[in-house]
Amino acid sequence: MSEKTRITDTMSEDELNARHAEKMKKKKAARDKIVATKTVEKGLVIVHTGKGKGKSTAAFGLVFRAIGNGMKVGVVQFVKGKWETGERAALDRFRDQVTITAMGDGFTWETQDRQRDIEAARQAWERAKAMIMDAEHDLVLLDELNIVLRYDYLDVNEIVTFLKQKPEMKHVVVTGRNAKDELIDFADLVTEMTMVKHPFRSGVKAQKGIEF
Amino acid sequence: MSEKTRITDTMSEDELNARHAEKMKKKKAARDKIVATKTVEKGLVIVHTGKGKGKSTAAFGLVFRAIGNGMKVGVVQFVKGKWETGERAALDRFRDQVTITAMGDGFTWETQDRQRDIEAARQAWERAKAMIMDAEHDLVLLDELNIVLRYDYLDVNEIVTFLKQKPEMKHVVVTGRNAKDELIDFADLVTEMTMVKHPFRSGVKAQKGIEF
Repeated sequence: MSEKTRITDTMSEDELNARHAEKMKKKKAARDKIVATKTVEKGLVIVHTGKGKGKSTAAFGLVFRAIGNGMKVGVVQFVKGKWETGERAALDRFRDQVTITAMGDGFTWETQDRQRDIEAARQAWERAKAMIMDAEHDLVLLDELNIVLRYDYLDVNEIVTFLKQKPEMKHVVVTGRNAKDELIDFADLVTEMTMVKHPFRSGVKAQKGIEF
Repeated sequence: MSEKTRITDTMSEDELNARHAEKMKKKKAARDKIVATKTVEKGLVIVHTGKGKGKSTAAFGLVFRAIGNGMKVGVVQFVKGKWETGERAALDRFRDQVTITAMGDGFTWETQDRQRDIEAARQAWERAKAMIMDAEHDLVLLDELNIVLRYDYLDVNEIVTFLKQKPEMKHVVVTGRNAKDELIDFADLVTEMTMVKHPFRSGVKAQKGIEF
């Protein structure tokens, strides 16, 4: 039994409550102090990477949060078919706030045509650049761009150089596993999604409403 | 220079393209084979944990994906104020598909009242139980339940025992850092969000549309 458990066991409910109030008070004070030092507002470059689930899903959550705040959002899909069902249907309710562009036929192992994929990636990136530079969109999501960079269909240095001169307040979100170091170095906020446990391992298939 | 780079450098574009097509063909075959073995459909218990960003945001993305697929969703917020702005406004467009319940005043270091928090947690859990058992909701999100469990306001064993007898096809999503081992053991899908880089460190404050 740990020291902490023993102390807690001998405390009355009143003592526990008092100790809790004290602890929370300190926590609040510490938190308020930290928040007071954070004063900079700027458009963030956000990267969701890692082998786990939730990279695009969290980006999709960001898109809806931004929409809910009245912002305008641009989405460029670099992988085909990923947003075709649930996301598309939900976004349809906000047509005046969302612009969605899919990359040609989209990169996928279905196509097996490298030259066509490179051209499609280039076109999608040109669309992305326009939305990143314009005065209309507040947030631009480059969904699965990391996969395209991983295959060297686009040059990560070109992307980083471009993002360096983006409008100050524009938020850019990039998703996909295997994010390149150059992009991670430049980004403001990087989260790695790690798979702890996956139902695929026990024969469960991808299901509507959860996976797509 | 690596072996791989040297080989690639001496290959013509045609050779590169042919090699790519072959590689993608193999990848597709491998993937199709794996997918064919996944045949089980069941309601999943999904946990988003870790110290990184995106736990609730990815859950929020799942909620919208489910809504887009015509499903009905129940949300129980165990921490106050988190979904008050962007998410709430966006969910308002789907009132017929979403039920949102906030836990009393919600657990927060603002309250500093342990007994009131315990009672509020208990009430919120009762609401959650009803939505998990009913025939109406397809997915139930228990946002930040892990925090409540971490403070032992609710007993994790009670939660797991209850989830064991949930309706077969009901999806349940639990978020919050420090997920308890008992919950991780029971869950079907567990993702850990790890912070690689955070803008707070360079004085950037929480911003509308991104953080809330």
